Amino acid sequence: MRATTIHAPREIQVSDVPTPTITAPTDAVIKVTAGCICGSDLWPYRGENDITPGSTIGHECVGVVEEVGAEVVSFKPGDFVIVPFCHSDNTCAHCRAGMQSACVHGGFTLSGQAEYALVTQAEGSLVKTDGMPDASMIPSLLTLSDVMATGWHAAVAAGVRRGGTAVVVGDGAVGLCGVLAAHVMGAEQVIAMSRHEPRQAIARQFGATSIIAERGKEGSAAVMELTGGVGADAVLECVGTDQAMKTAFAIARPGSTVGFVGVPHGVDLPISKMFQKNVGLAGGMAPVRQYLPELLELVQDGTINPGLVFDLTLPLDEVAEGYRAMDERRAIKVLIQP
Amino acid sequence: MRATTIHAPREIQVSDVPTPTITAPTDAVIKVTAGCICGSDLWPYRGENDITPGSTIGHECVGVVEEVGAEVVSFKPGDFVIVPFCHSDNTCAHCRAGMQSACVHGGFTLSGQAEYALVTQAEGSLVKTDGMPDASMIPSLLTLSDVMATGWHAAVAAGVRRGGTAVVVGDGAVGLCGVLAAHVMGAEQVIAMSRHEPRQAIARQFGATSIIAERGKEGSAAVMELTGGVGADAVLECVGTDQAMKTAFAIARPGSTVGFVGVPHGVDLPISKMFQKNVGLAGGMAPVRQYLPELLELVQDGTINPGLVFDLTLPLDEVAEGYRAMDERRAIKVLIQP
Repeated sequence: MRATTIHAPREIQVSDVPTPTITAPTDAVIKVTAGCICGSDLWPYRGENDITPGSTIGHECVGVVEEVGAEVVSFKPGDFVIVPFCHSDNTCAHCRAGMQSACVHGGFTLSGQAEYALVTQAEGSLVKTDGMPDASMIPSLLTLSDVMATGWHAAVAAGVRRGGTAVVVGDGAVGLCGVLAAHVMGAEQVIAMSRHEPRQAIARQFGATSIIAERGKEGSAAVMELTGGVGADAVLECVGTDQAMKTAFAIARPGSTVGFVGVPHGVDLPISKMFQKNVGLAGGMAPVRQYLPELLELVQDGTINPGLVFDLTLPLDEVAEGYRAMDERRAIKVLIQP
Repeated sequence: MRATTIHAPREIQVSDVPTPTITAPTDAVIKVTAGCICGSDLWPYRGENDITPGSTIGHECVGVVEEVGAEVVSFKPGDFVIVPFCHSDNTCAHCRAGMQSACVHGGFTLSGQAEYALVTQAEGSLVKTDGMPDASMIPSLLTLSDVMATGWHAAVAAGVRRGGTAVVVGDGAVGLCGVLAAHVMGAEQVIAMSRHEPRQAIARQFGATSIIAERGKEGSAAVMELTGGVGADAVLECVGTDQAMKTAFAIARPGSTVGFVGVPHGVDLPISKMFQKNVGLAGGMAPVRQYLPELLELVQDGTINPGLVFDLTLPLDEVAEGYRAMDERRAIKVLIQP
């Protein structure tokens, strides 16, 4: 099959690789309808993570079940499914506690930007739609594979509450989904920190009540002013850099929690400030499967339209341009059609 | 008045210093009935914190109101009061949110190991007992000034729940109070990590269902075995060192929270592990005033007897020996009688 592969920093290709096959009774093979590029794919792309040259890349996709293993009973060829980027049996102690991203039989989608993807633990991971979705629904359904569920996780981890104030640090696709999550959860004041006009526009569509374009100390000061000097009831840190984390802890009110979902890179947590202010940190790799049924309903009934984060759609052959566009921030998030 | 002063590392004296007086209408002067030495007093004692030579030391005490400022209406001379180590107006936004340790008018008790102590924001800080307590109650009442409230805060921050498993890292007085808090909050399995026989005995009296004497990797392995390989539902980190924190994150189950209350010294938080396991960190300086009414009731009705953490009582003149005894771990916690 044709799949996106990475060979060195900034070297993305479309290669012929073996099509995944069923090797365990819990497997399923998915014919990918749509995949996409994640902000976290940019870490190896930029040379900040180790690369195994020639390996496939891409962990987000939706598609149609092609084949299932003997123990997969709830899905059959032809079903349209959301594929969580992290797989889970949904029965172990961690899964039962809602932490499917820590499943003892966990695994990851390894070829989401490709013609086919393998899902281990298909029975516990996949969620199917009612029938074949309309093409217009594909982008929003695709976000449930990772980015929307991750923004939602940031809001859950930060303890967003009805009537409160939520600040989202980061205007990437995850941050925008965090804005949407905070809005849906009932935060009265949703403050998006964003310098980029097109992202600000989506943040507003997603429910942001204020936009702060300043960064660093100026940005923190603006949040403090908007919150009457108290600080935010909940902060969603959706970047993963040290600067974003420092901003998050500067604006979180005492007793609140910073919800973090960006893979941390070079972050030095301000533990003394956390101690003095009683500001906690919670979050991590989103347990997508926990949130999927609820989020699927919100998408299907039209309450949320997270697919708006895709501002560029490319055929698989042009996936390298998709990486360039995201790396250069010319695109927020790129949808790939195999 | 006579007060404990610190002059250099390991140099504790009893000195004549000016008796506190009312300088603001929110002040109260307390005649100290009993004070005590805190584990955090050992940081400057050991030279790990900066010292202002000759300054008074000690932030925990109970006593009798001697004099109050014009705006203090709920307390009068003769009232027996618990003095939270951190003072608060109990009306600002942070106080109303239960984070009195972040009060915008906050301050600290500066001469708890002395004849008199000044409380700024007396109206919002103090809590009085019903009449003059029996001498036998003094130790337990004294713990409410800091150590018991701090152990309680660790349990709250860690999210201890009825029927769950709580592990307490650290067998100092705070850790032992954390054991008591977890037990009172209904944790079914309360695991105390302690190598010292006398401390193990108190941990058992306070409700520990298991004791783990091993440290580091062996200690973590023992907890994992006791929890069926899942890890603890809640971990109370009551030390503040890097080793204690690392142990805490190693044994916390995915999706759980480490509650921390030990002033962090040299802690390098394992952010990648926190991210991968979705283990949060919460806590900090305990908002004593939030918990005081509830804890006072538990002490007065005999539900808890946290005063057991005091295994040495000394007159103020011998306070230096109290520091030595705690530094050398010959005493768990030392009560000082002015």
